[in-house]
Amino acid sequence: LLKKILCLSKVLDFHHPHQLKDGLEGFSLDLPEHAETLEQILVDCRDTLKYGVSTGHPRFFNQLSSGLDVIGVAGEWLTSTANTNMFTYEVSPVFILMEEVLLKKMQSIVGWSEDEGDGIFCPGGTISNLYSILVARYRVCPEVKTKGMGALPPLALFTSEHSHYSVKKSAAVLGLGSESVMVVTCDERGKMIPAELESSILAAKSKGLLPFYVNATAGTTVYGAFDPLAAIADICHTHRLWMHVDAAWGGGLLMSDRHRRKLQGIERACSVTWNPHKMMCVPLQCSVILVKKPGLLQECNKLGAEYLFQTDKPYDVNYDTGDKSIQCGRHVDVFKLWLMWKAKGSDGFGSQVNKCLENAEYLYDQLKRNSDFQLVFKHKPEHSNVCFWYIPPSLRALQPGPDRDRRLHEVAPQIKGRMMEKGSVLIGYQPFGDKVNFFRCVFSNPATQPEDIDFLLNEIITLGADL
Amino acid sequence: LLKKILCLSKVLDFHHPHQLKDGLEGFSLDLPEHAETLEQILVDCRDTLKYGVSTGHPRFFNQLSSGLDVIGVAGEWLTSTANTNMFTYEVSPVFILMEEVLLKKMQSIVGWSEDEGDGIFCPGGTISNLYSILVARYRVCPEVKTKGMGALPPLALFTSEHSHYSVKKSAAVLGLGSESVMVVTCDERGKMIPAELESSILAAKSKGLLPFYVNATAGTTVYGAFDPLAAIADICHTHRLWMHVDAAWGGGLLMSDRHRRKLQGIERACSVTWNPHKMMCVPLQCSVILVKKPGLLQECNKLGAEYLFQTDKPYDVNYDTGDKSIQCGRHVDVFKLWLMWKAKGSDGFGSQVNKCLENAEYLYDQLKRNSDFQLVFKHKPEHSNVCFWYIPPSLRALQPGPDRDRRLHEVAPQIKGRMMEKGSVLIGYQPFGDKVNFFRCVFSNPATQPEDIDFLLNEIITLGADL
Ligand SMILES: Cc1ncc(COP(=O)(O)O)c(C=O)c1O
Ligand SMILES: Cc1ncc(COP(=O)(O)O)c(C=O)c1O
Repeated sequence: LLKKILCLSKVLDFHHPHQLKDGLEGFSLDLPEHAETLEQILVDCRDTLKYGVSTGHPRFFNQLSSGLDVIGVAGEWLTSTANTNMFTYEVSPVFILMEEVLLKKMQSIVGWSEDEGDGIFCPGGTISNLYSILVARYRVCPEVKTKGMGALPPLALFTSEHSHYSVKKSAAVLGLGSESVMVVTCDERGKMIPAELESSILAAKSKGLLPFYVNATAGTTVYGAFDPLAAIADICHTHRLWMHVDAAWGGGLLMSDRHRRKLQGIERACSVTWNPHKMMCVPLQCSVILVKKPGLLQECNKLGAEYLFQTDKPYDVNYDTGDKSIQCGRHVDVFKLWLMWKAKGSDGFGSQVNKCLENAEYLYDQLKRNSDFQLVFKHKPEHSNVCFWYIPPSLRALQPGPDRDRRLHEVAPQIKGRMMEKGSVLIGYQPFGDKVNFFRCVFSNPATQPEDIDFLLNEIITLGADL
Repeated sequence: LLKKILCLSKVLDFHHPHQLKDGLEGFSLDLPEHAETLEQILVDCRDTLKYGVSTGHPRFFNQLSSGLDVIGVAGEWLTSTANTNMFTYEVSPVFILMEEVLLKKMQSIVGWSEDEGDGIFCPGGTISNLYSILVARYRVCPEVKTKGMGALPPLALFTSEHSHYSVKKSAAVLGLGSESVMVVTCDERGKMIPAELESSILAAKSKGLLPFYVNATAGTTVYGAFDPLAAIADICHTHRLWMHVDAAWGGGLLMSDRHRRKLQGIERACSVTWNPHKMMCVPLQCSVILVKKPGLLQECNKLGAEYLFQTDKPYDVNYDTGDKSIQCGRHVDVFKLWLMWKAKGSDGFGSQVNKCLENAEYLYDQLKRNSDFQLVFKHKPEHSNVCFWYIPPSLRALQPGPDRDRRLHEVAPQIKGRMMEKGSVLIGYQPFGDKVNFFRCVFSNPATQPEDIDFLLNEIITLGADL
C-alpha cells in the first residue's frame, strides 16, 4: 500500500527558480529580522519538502545516490542529536571506535591483510580521490609537505577517459595542474585499455615527466564499467606507480558474492575510494578513503595543533585520529553505516546489491527487445548503469549520420523537460565523447521494482511520441 | 526542570578505548554477518548515546561547537530525510535557492554591496580556508589550474602565530608547502601586529618570494583575539595582496549590534570564512566561504562534467552551482541554518551571541577576584574565550620560574583527567608558545547559565585541591 501511495505521489513538483523565489503560495525564502511563530516554521518545513525532489522515490533514477533507508535515516537523526566532532576520542569516543571497526572491515573486504590498512571517512568521493593523490605525492617526496611542488619534478598521473572528473579537479586543487593528468583511452565498453596505459606512461617519461599515480575506476559514473584491475596492477608494479582504485560507485559490489569478482585485483591497490552513500544506499554523506600502508595518512597530514592534540591526555592518544585528516572539525558519517550494517548484516547488503543489479538486467532485457530504444553499448550491464537512446517515431526511418545525430541529441533533453514538468519519474541524460545525448538509468534504491522500470519506459514513449 | 535534570546528568561517561572495545555490558561494536533484531538496534542506539559525550550539556565547555538547538536538529532531521545533493538545481531546487539567499544575507552582513559577493557552503572552516587560498592563487595566475605550481614563482602567504593551523595545512595540501606560510608575531593579547606583517612581507620579497595572501583572524581559536582588520587591509592594499578573514569563530559576532564593531574592516576582505556551526550554535557541519568578486570561485573550480552540468537543461543552469565546488556530491548544510534563522530572526541570533559573551565576562570577573586562579592575559575577553590557570595550594607559595612552570604544566591535564572520570563538566586545555598548559573556556551554548560557571570553578578547585 505504501508503495502504491509512493508511486502515485510525484517524484518532484517542478518550479523554475524565479517561481520559487517569487514566493509560491506564501512560501517565502527570505530571512526575517524577528522570530517567526512555530506554526510558520512547520509550514516552512512542509513547503521545503513539497517543492523538493523525492530522491527516495522508487521512480527516481537520476543519480547514483537514491533511496531512503529507514535505519540509515534513524542513524543520521541520532548523529545530529549527538552533534559532535570526529577530531578527538575525548569528544567522540564511540564514533571514533566505530570508524576503526568499519575501516578494518572494509579493508578486509577489499582483501588487505590484518596488518595492512588505514583510512578515514571524508566528505565525498571527490575528497577521497583527492586524498589518494595527496598521499601518493607525499610518498614520492615527503618534502612536498613543507617545500611544496617546487621540491618535485613535473609529475604525471593517469586515469581513463571514462573516469570521474574528480581526478582532474583534485590535480588542479593540489597544485599539480589538470594537464598533469594523462587521459587513457577506453574500449567501447568504457574500460581502460592496459596497453594504452602502458604507452601513455612511456610517452610521459619521454617528455621528462615523472609518472607516479594511476587511477583505475571500478564502476565508472556513466557506463558503470570496471577497469581491468589486475592488468593495471601489473603495470603499476612494473613502473613502481601508486595504484588507486576509485570504487566510489562500484565498491558496493564487494558486498555481493555474486558480483565481487568484477573487482578482482583491487586487493593490489595502494588506496581505494569507496562511497557507501552510493550503491549501499547509506544517506549522504558517507565516503571512505582506504590506504594500504599504515601511518602514511597521518604523516602526510599531521600538524599536531596543540589545542586539540595534546600528548599528555589521560587516554591513549592514538585514538585522536583528527590529524590524519585535511579537515579539522569532521562530521560523524560513520554511525548511520554502522547501524545499517547491524540491521542488515553483510549478507543483507549483498542481497540489496544483487537486487539492484537484477533491475539493471531487467531494464537491459526490455530495451533489447523493444525497437523504440537503442542501447549505447551492446554488452550486458556489469554494474547497475544502463545507457540507451529513445528513438522517436520521426527518427526511425533516418539513416545513421550527422543529421540523425543532431536530431537525436535533442530528444533526451526534451523528454527530460517534460518529465520534470509532469513529475512522474526522473532519469538523467548526457552526451559522451562522440555519442549524442542518451539516457543513463542507475539503480541503487532497493525499493525499485520491475513495474517501476516498465513505467519508466512507457513514460518515455508517451512523452516522446510526438518528437 | 529540564535544566535541573540535564545538570544532574553527566556530561560524559568515560571509558578507555580498550574498555569500549571489549564490549561493555553487551555493547558490541562488531559488524554482524546477519541482520540483528530491531530490539537490538534500539539497544545499540541507546548505548551509543550512553557512552558518548553530551556536547549539548550546559556544562560542556570543551570545544568551539557546543549546544543543541532544537530547531537546528529538526532542520538536520528534515535534511537527512530529503537525502539529496547540492550539485544541481534539478535535484535540490529549494536548497539551492536557500543557499543563494543565505550567502547574500551573510555577504550583506559582512558589509559587501549588492553587486559584490559569491560563496559556497562547505564541510568546515578548514576547507573554507583552503578555498580562500585556492581562489587567491588562481587570481594571481589562472594558469595554475592547468599547469600547476610550476606556472608560478615561489609564493608566500602570511598569517599570525595565533591563527588556526588550517592555513598551514591548506598550504601543504595545495602544493605550496607549509614553509610558504610566514608566521607573523602577535601582541600579548594574541592580535597580529601590523608592523610585523609589513616587515614580514618585505622580508619575503627580498628572499625572492611572491607574497599574495594574508589571513587575518577574527576570533582566534585559543585566545578569541581579533586581528586589527582595518590596518591589515591597508597593508594588503599597499602590497596588492589578497586579504582573507578567518571569522570561522568570530563571524557570529556580526549578528550582534553590540559586538560587531570588533570586526570592523572585514568589509574590505577579498574572502571570509564564517562557521555558523560555531558561535551561532548551528548543528555540525555548517560553514561558508564568501568571496567578494563574483565568478571567481566558478572559474577557479569549473570543469564542466557533462553528466551533471548539461547546458541544454529545461531551466536556468546558472542555478547548477556544483561546479563552484571542489567537491562533486555536496551535503545539504544550509537548511538547518535557514530554519534557525526563521525561528530566531536576525535579532534572536544577536541576543544569543550577547548572552554567550556575557557568560565569558562573568567568568572573567569571577577569576579576577579569586586568587586560586590566574588569567593568561589580563584584558577583558573580546570573544567568549577565557584562558586561565588554576594554581593548586602547593604551588601558591612558589616564585614564578621554570620550576613552578614545570609543575603548573601538569595541573590542567591532571584535573582534566579527573574531570573526565567524574563526568560532571568538560573544559579544554593546551599550552601556547611559552605558556604552560592552561584551561580555555569557551561559550557558544546559550543554555549555559552563571551557575554552571560557578559549578565549573568549584569543580576545578575540588578536583585540584590535593595537587
Ligand atoms: C579560527 C578558526 N578557523 C578555522 C577553524 C576550522 O574550522 P573547522 O573545525 O570547521 O574546520 C577553527 C576551528 O576551531 C578556528 O577556530
Ligand atoms: C566513479 C566516481 N568517483 C567519484 C565520484 C565522486 O563522488 P562524490 O559525489 O561523493 O564526491 C563519483 C560521483 O558520482 C563517481 O561516480
